[in-house]
Amino acid sequence: MELVPRILEGDRRALARLISLIEDNGPPAQAALAALHPHTGRAHIVGVTGAPGTGKSTLVNELAKGFRRRGATVGIVAVDPTSPFTGGALLGDRVRMRDLAGDPGIFIRSMATRGSLGGLARATGDVVKVLDAAGFAVVLVETVGVGQAEVDIARTAHTTIVVEAPGLGDDVQALKAGLMEIADILVVNKADRPGAAQTARALEVALELGRNNTGPGKSAGWRPPVLKTVALDGNGVAEVLEAIAAHRAYLESSGLWNYREQERARADLIGALEREMLARLLARMGEAALEEWTARIVRREADVYTAVQAMLESL
Amino acid sequence: MELVPRILEGDRRALARLISLIEDNGPPAQAALAALHPHTGRAHIVGVTGAPGTGKSTLVNELAKGFRRRGATVGIVAVDPTSPFTGGALLGDRVRMRDLAGDPGIFIRSMATRGSLGGLARATGDVVKVLDAAGFAVVLVETVGVGQAEVDIARTAHTTIVVEAPGLGDDVQALKAGLMEIADILVVNKADRPGAAQTARALEVALELGRNNTGPGKSAGWRPPVLKTVALDGNGVAEVLEAIAAHRAYLESSGLWNYREQERARADLIGALEREMLARLLARMGEAALEEWTARIVRREADVYTAVQAMLESL
Repeated sequence: MELVPRILEGDRRALARLISLIEDNGPPAQAALAALHPHTGRAHIVGVTGAPGTGKSTLVNELAKGFRRRGATVGIVAVDPTSPFTGGALLGDRVRMRDLAGDPGIFIRSMATRGSLGGLARATGDVVKVLDAAGFAVVLVETVGVGQAEVDIARTAHTTIVVEAPGLGDDVQALKAGLMEIADILVVNKADRPGAAQTARALEVALELGRNNTGPGKSAGWRPPVLKTVALDGNGVAEVLEAIAAHRAYLESSGLWNYREQERARADLIGALEREMLARLLARMGEAALEEWTARIVRREADVYTAVQAMLESL
Repeated sequence: MELVPRILEGDRRALARLISLIEDNGPPAQAALAALHPHTGRAHIVGVTGAPGTGKSTLVNELAKGFRRRGATVGIVAVDPTSPFTGGALLGDRVRMRDLAGDPGIFIRSMATRGSLGGLARATGDVVKVLDAAGFAVVLVETVGVGQAEVDIARTAHTTIVVEAPGLGDDVQALKAGLMEIADILVVNKADRPGAAQTARALEVALELGRNNTGPGKSAGWRPPVLKTVALDGNGVAEVLEAIAAHRAYLESSGLWNYREQERARADLIGALEREMLARLLARMGEAALEEWTARIVRREADVYTAVQAMLESL
């Protein structure tokens, strides 16, 4: 596959091409990913997540510019649940392109929901790997929304930033969305708005309450800082960049960097096993068998669990 | 399994017990679900989704009361990404309990994220089936958040209501979250707030733009109404109830009711096949093999796809 050496040299067209193949999810993408795998593991993967309206995209842009000023190359993967219905790039993307395009040290890709949720998470993980192999020092993964898929995607990052903003209806959305426990750094963006101090205070209190609630892989020795930014003016962004660097140093010295690598590899492996076994099963039984069992379930002649046992026994 | 006859008689303690078993995901739950399957297929499953702060929970409560006044029994499943970190019931749940508890024609259950995303979607689908078998005429599935998991859960409903509210930072969040294409009914709640007319207008325009974008299973002959409510005062709720009834009539007359049943059954079957095949594989290979391959991937001695092929070949 000639794409691989070109990607390792940083060829942007080859990169874009492989990412499209990943979205199509065919054998060429799998072969390229296998060849790129030995070259992965160096990038610092930073997830940025939060509710709509918090100004995440602007913050991601400012972080990217800050990393560039410090000499690091940056890949950006914006995971966007926008569907074909709305079509095309969002305003945030257009602003982003104008702002960052033309810098060869930055590569930006939006990932839209094409099929299932699992598909999006898989494709995002694969694109992150490709950017890692291509040599980007930092990969920023921006997830729109506050749902479980976003939490799962953020979980694969080394460092997860949860963004809040004052006055979004709910006082502290991260609390509701279960994002507190995955946050390594909390940012109250739009901090020039009324209510910013209260939002920050509420997050501090929640952190205090959650102190005893650290599971395996959680940063027992790391207290997530609560930082205030006005990303639109660049205010406070330097402090976020410092916190990201500090968190990386912490991960490496504590052994958590390796722990998170392992968690990600195990989840990837299980997902790939499930997909491959299903594909092989359907290849052997034929799609018609699947449709036939589906029809029986709809007619209430069989339930799902009985159908599964019968399908697997029939082989 | 003695739970099954008790559930078919509407025993609430048996219901609660089985739902806990479903969350634990063991063989007893599977056996009960299999036995209940022939009794499912009668309930009207209504998904209610939207961003935090739109007042979804209040709307769901008012819809439940409205259905009760019309003589229908109601099951409510609130899918809540709140994690153990925040712990316990949300304010919305407490208000809800005070408001609706004591009515034997209403059953309420909150589903929290326990493990993976897939786990939550599976458990929610199973709980909906149990409430269906127990004879609830309507099952309201409320999803917090605007992520892909929520979209996937809503997709399993017969009728999906997307709730907006004016002044939540983003003008029309449904557009961004890809919710427009799954909406059968759009509700602008908190319609006494400034900006409600603009929010409704933006939704109407988006609907107009999306007219040509109907896929299979979409309601080509159904134009989603945009309704305004002030759920806190009960204003506009009767119109939403009428729209739900009209949509059900449309689904039945158009054949889409059956189409959606089939889609749900196929997705259930595929998910159950994947889980069972993975469980059988790990039972044969042992968890140690999974850990060993994970370690090889982390050390870059193997990539995921090579590992999958080798693991499946070794059997």
